[in-house]
Amino acid sequence: MSTLAELITETVEFIRTEVLPIDDAHDGDVEAAGGENLRIRLQAKARERGLLTPHAPAEFGGHGLNMSDRAPVFEAAGYSLFGPMAVNVNAPDEGNLHLLAHVGTASQRERYLRPLAEGRHRSAFAMTEPAPGAGSDPGALLTRAERADGGWLINGRKRFITGADGAGFFIIMARTSGEPDSAQGATMFLAPASTPGISIDRHVNTIDRSMLGGHCEMTFTDVRVSDDDVLGEVDQGFRYAQVRLGPARMTHVMRWTGAAQRAHETAVAYTAGRQAFGARLSDLGMAQQMIADNEIDLAATRALLREACAELDAGGRASKATSIAKTFAAEALHRVTDRSVQLCGGLGVSSDLPVAKIARELRPFRIYDGPSEVHRWSIAKRAVRQYGS
Amino acid sequence: MSTLAELITETVEFIRTEVLPIDDAHDGDVEAAGGENLRIRLQAKARERGLLTPHAPAEFGGHGLNMSDRAPVFEAAGYSLFGPMAVNVNAPDEGNLHLLAHVGTASQRERYLRPLAEGRHRSAFAMTEPAPGAGSDPGALLTRAERADGGWLINGRKRFITGADGAGFFIIMARTSGEPDSAQGATMFLAPASTPGISIDRHVNTIDRSMLGGHCEMTFTDVRVSDDDVLGEVDQGFRYAQVRLGPARMTHVMRWTGAAQRAHETAVAYTAGRQAFGARLSDLGMAQQMIADNEIDLAATRALLREACAELDAGGRASKATSIAKTFAAEALHRVTDRSVQLCGGLGVSSDLPVAKIARELRPFRIYDGPSEVHRWSIAKRAVRQYGS
Amino acid sequence: MSTLAELITETVEFIRTEVLPIDDAHDGDVEAAGGENLRIRLQAKARERGLLTPHAPAEFGGHGLNMSDRAPVFEAAGYSLFGPMAVNVNAPDEGNLHLLAHVGTASQRERYLRPLAEGRHRSAFAMTEPAPGAGSDPGALLTRAERADGGWLINGRKRFITGADGAGFFIIMARTSGEPDSAQGATMFLAPASTPGISIDRHVNTIDRSMLGGHCEMTFTDVRVSDDDVLGEVDQGFRYAQVRLGPARMTHVMRWTGAAQRAHETAVAYTAGRQAFGARLSDLGMAQQMIADNEIDLAATRALLREACAELDAGGRASKATSIAKTFAAEALHRVTDRSVQLCGGLGVSSDLPVAKIARELRPFRIYDGPSEVHRWSIAKRAVRQYGS
Amino acid sequence: MSTLAELITETVEFIRTEVLPIDDAHDGDVEAAGGENLRIRLQAKARERGLLTPHAPAEFGGHGLNMSDRAPVFEAAGYSLFGPMAVNVNAPDEGNLHLLAHVGTASQRERYLRPLAEGRHRSAFAMTEPAPGAGSDPGALLTRAERADGGWLINGRKRFITGADGAGFFIIMARTSGEPDSAQGATMFLAPASTPGISIDRHVNTIDRSMLGGHCEMTFTDVRVSDDDVLGEVDQGFRYAQVRLGPARMTHVMRWTGAAQRAHETAVAYTAGRQAFGARLSDLGMAQQMIADNEIDLAATRALLREACAELDAGGRASKATSIAKTFAAEALHRVTDRSVQLCGGLGVSSDLPVAKIARELRPFRIYDGPSEVHRWSIAKRAVRQYGS
Repeated sequence: MSTLAELITETVEFIRTEVLPIDDAHDGDVEAAGGENLRIRLQAKARERGLLTPHAPAEFGGHGLNMSDRAPVFEAAGYSLFGPMAVNVNAPDEGNLHLLAHVGTASQRERYLRPLAEGRHRSAFAMTEPAPGAGSDPGALLTRAERADGGWLINGRKRFITGADGAGFFIIMARTSGEPDSAQGATMFLAPASTPGISIDRHVNTIDRSMLGGHCEMTFTDVRVSDDDVLGEVDQGFRYAQVRLGPARMTHVMRWTGAAQRAHETAVAYTAGRQAFGARLSDLGMAQQMIADNEIDLAATRALLREACAELDAGGRASKATSIAKTFAAEALHRVTDRSVQLCGGLGVSSDLPVAKIARELRPFRIYDGPSEVHRWSIAKRAVRQYGS
Repeated sequence: MSTLAELITETVEFIRTEVLPIDDAHDGDVEAAGGENLRIRLQAKARERGLLTPHAPAEFGGHGLNMSDRAPVFEAAGYSLFGPMAVNVNAPDEGNLHLLAHVGTASQRERYLRPLAEGRHRSAFAMTEPAPGAGSDPGALLTRAERADGGWLINGRKRFITGADGAGFFIIMARTSGEPDSAQGATMFLAPASTPGISIDRHVNTIDRSMLGGHCEMTFTDVRVSDDDVLGEVDQGFRYAQVRLGPARMTHVMRWTGAAQRAHETAVAYTAGRQAFGARLSDLGMAQQMIADNEIDLAATRALLREACAELDAGGRASKATSIAKTFAAEALHRVTDRSVQLCGGLGVSSDLPVAKIARELRPFRIYDGPSEVHRWSIAKRAVRQYGS
Repeated sequence: MSTLAELITETVEFIRTEVLPIDDAHDGDVEAAGGENLRIRLQAKARERGLLTPHAPAEFGGHGLNMSDRAPVFEAAGYSLFGPMAVNVNAPDEGNLHLLAHVGTASQRERYLRPLAEGRHRSAFAMTEPAPGAGSDPGALLTRAERADGGWLINGRKRFITGADGAGFFIIMARTSGEPDSAQGATMFLAPASTPGISIDRHVNTIDRSMLGGHCEMTFTDVRVSDDDVLGEVDQGFRYAQVRLGPARMTHVMRWTGAAQRAHETAVAYTAGRQAFGARLSDLGMAQQMIADNEIDLAATRALLREACAELDAGGRASKATSIAKTFAAEALHRVTDRSVQLCGGLGVSSDLPVAKIARELRPFRIYDGPSEVHRWSIAKRAVRQYGS
Repeated sequence: MSTLAELITETVEFIRTEVLPIDDAHDGDVEAAGGENLRIRLQAKARERGLLTPHAPAEFGGHGLNMSDRAPVFEAAGYSLFGPMAVNVNAPDEGNLHLLAHVGTASQRERYLRPLAEGRHRSAFAMTEPAPGAGSDPGALLTRAERADGGWLINGRKRFITGADGAGFFIIMARTSGEPDSAQGATMFLAPASTPGISIDRHVNTIDRSMLGGHCEMTFTDVRVSDDDVLGEVDQGFRYAQVRLGPARMTHVMRWTGAAQRAHETAVAYTAGRQAFGARLSDLGMAQQMIADNEIDLAATRALLREACAELDAGGRASKATSIAKTFAAEALHRVTDRSVQLCGGLGVSSDLPVAKIARELRPFRIYDGPSEVHRWSIAKRAVRQYGS
């Protein structure tokens, strides 16, 4: 426990002194700030301080944090847009590491997980496809893997593959049986980025700028994967995706809570230092209302997060709890940053203060990892099953 | 733990079989349903089953539930508007009992707490006053208690005194020193209802109808109280009010969560059984959105509640946590019932279904125990102190 | 125009001096205030002052106000919950009069419209049915009229028939051809209340109390109607329902705007006269925000209303405009009254101030005349047709 | 009238064929698209078609459109982010032209207004200052103009001066009498950009990218202005600012309505062309709700706008109407674009579709021209004056 408290304190300290100044100097644009070189430089510092990849199993150099303990550490990292990268708890690596730790063979863990935990390469998770393929509805998966010479040949197109450009390896979701729209028959494959047939076609030009490697469109053309690089069992890919999904949703919430917390603190400090109409802005009722609503939204986000983490740590799937926590958090943290922007007035929409960039980075969270509408759909169906008769 | 689980299960069962039918038959109007006689009848049944006053200390016949354990039991009771009365966990008795247990002398506990725990009388908490007296701002307290013949003489007017009509005794908040608008100098006094000078002037005709004894205007004219009936120390009344306040806020949340949960379940069942435009109502996206939002609001309410309870159980004042949980809950549960009404269409605004009455009973919760605006004000000021420099 | 201005001024004056005191004395409960006798008494006074049924054609004693001119007059009437009844512009009579004026034969107009315009009887519009009949989806109409001896025999059940108890005649919507779920084949029939086979089964106990004659469940058993009492042409009932619908929606908005305006004015006056925390409540930012939002909601409601009225006056169906105006208004005016309740604190949920009763009366408006969800559905489909390709 | 209809049609056509492709090709970044050269090129085409500066008085080549007629034309221009620039109806030029037409001397109009109307130069309005100067509270004005040699010397700092970089002239607001925080004593001065002492210090790096000339920080150091370049009367600057303000607010609303309309149309078309979960996205209830809410918000924005314009055209100050319309519009159009982004899923936060860029450009509108909170404050104070006694 003392270790966790120290880990939090030191992560907070590291982020504020080493990472935040670089983030602010480049308005949260990771490429402008140095890109891959910046990552290597910051991770080296984090490694020195024992702060790198804190959630990795101890055998891979981490602290083996459970979900509940990840929450405050990842939030501390998220306080800077570059923080999760700096301590190596960023999506998609963090979720990929989690998945490899749970499903990977010993040899896969040595080959893919260890260098990931050590920050020696990055990774990407290639599931989402352009319409009409897998998107909000994963069952629409079109990419196919077919048997060939004791291995597999993968063909298909992917889109919004975060971190793809520069990744060391890919986890590729491909259909090994069943037809599109079947919720069965997917398999996960591991493939080094150097495997022939893997092509990064373009970066989708999204509004966020803090994710190394972008959100890419990719083509897989006759990508050959051996049986050793099948992750888990054949045809069980959708099940593993669920294993990855719940925790990955929650770690997104952790990181973005940190970012929203910073926007909030910035806005409170701004209004406390600014006079208008004969009073401090922070003493005006309409400002107080926004500040209080931020506090309430942050508290409710954390409360839902902690409950979902406790359920995951107890071994549950926590589908409902993580779905509710993700949906609430994405909307609540968006409100927090939007109010923070508003509280800062003209400077709130500029790079003079760090609130506009946080708003920009956070907006997509209501869409990825399941748009709010898809989550609500599943939450409602569950309620109708429970109370509808 | 098995005991708590059983207590919950049995409370659920008791409420649904013995209490709910009476509640529904009288549209939640407690006077129409029998008033004080109904209370005595239902509490007798609850006593038989060992469900009465579960939060009372064991020496007074209860289970001594801490706040965390109260939550599911009180929520089960709140599922019916008459449930909290039936198992004797209703405001203001429940908060008064809590206060007496913490502050009362042994003799006060025997005289006032024991019969309260046993359901032999009810009580009221006389703090709020008509403008310009104590309201959202307790420091405006105008009622005065003055030294007289080794005791005290209390004079003043009170308003919105819940449960006053028919109460066996009152806890009266009166100023023993300091001027109005001073946040010091109040004292709490215990007075049997039969004490000369206590007058119930009228029931304020509020929209809710499930509280026995109404919300009354009262006058205290030369009400004589002995030193033995001073509750706690002289001039420390505001401090004790705080002791009562945090837990009392949370038990309100518990009970109202039960009521809102019932509205939600009713609406889901209604929409699942109703066809329109060629589909079940519960399969239409706009209905699903309302159902999902209800689930989210209920989950966030419970998560905030549990955190505040844990903090109280750990011995904290939990001012911030209870303030946030109360504010969020009052608004979220209001939204839940409002959506439930909307989902039920024309029947939703009638007494054919139990949603309109729940909406009616819940509305005042955004106002009493501190209007949302006053809580936001204090939450904001706290945030400005924390981040404002 | 001077006539209109005078009509408004005198309606305002009449409502405030003659109607409002009775409304307030009985908390908006029309039966408690005298019911049918009260109507006769107030309408007599309105008649004396030339304020009765101002929208009726001149030949029936009215001013023949177009929709645009009705707006301020009906809003003035709606300022009291009994006002629309007092000047005879209440639903459903007002819509029925409108329909008779547009579709009725000369003889029908003499027999039904003239006494309606003169306040000699009331009327009801019998369209809505219990599930699975006509509700949000009028095409589900189950009540049937069949040919018999040169006339018609009507059989079926109806629900939520406003004003039915005590009505002098009914406009009955019945299926004369087609199957349930067909949007064709309905016919409107006129029937005096004394016609054998018409039965008022019960009042649905809804939360509102200001509508004379309640919202009733009815049975029509072999109700015989002659061909002279067919309103308009056979099988054209749905078309006429549309004729009635657009204007009826808008006059609801007019009346409820008056009621919400009163709640708003009450709340502003209350906060301006009340001190808390060292300031007038009306000078506190959170109160100002609610007051301003009320002003904005009222302004937007009136702006949308005026545009829809202008479109109707120009001869258009204005389906989109009235649908948008109704949906917005029902929600905006609900917000206005809810904020007004909140601004008035404890008294806001009591009958000491007239805000709680207005909130209670207004709530059903989001449901009747098309729930907001059904309107949104049709608004969206229209947009998809327009922009979707 | 036929002229207005033609003007609208031709503006729509011009914007879609000549302007929109350039806007989309550069993600709304005006500098990347050519900056000042692009403006000159597009305005030349607009001039050829008779579409340039349509609101300018006829003597300066325009159509002298009143506010009501500007609405549909400016909205058509706003459909592209570069449209207002292309037809020369952009802020701040449009408001400056309006002001010069109302207040300028004949010689000032020839010297400043004519080339502005003809697109030969741009202009800027230098009012806002860094804290603690003029911002939401104009009375805090610090910049001073002092008498010197029969003219004036202006000294002070300004911030958020839109279009400053590259402007041909400035309208400078400076204090000629009174102390800071006095709402009197300001004067407006005209100064060519070449006047010595005018310095553009930096562009504030705001999130929007479609405004030519940026939002600049400036210093005025001993800027000498002759009496001929005083705009209007000395010490009457705040009054003229009000003349400019109401109409300028409304033309902002017009332009942004066009942009939001495009986001909405884009989202509807996207959802109509996309399948998910076995249906068109546009047939799913939650999507329909967002689409309908967009329609409602757009309709209410236009209705409030038209009422305010009618009031201005009738010669009124329309302070209340323009304040309400601006506040509602800024928030409603923000909601429209945010929903549009959400409806488009992953592509909604990318530059593949034009919704993210519109959201980015629109966000600041809730802050400039008076933040929503300042408008609410003034709306509330007005209501309290009206109803508060």
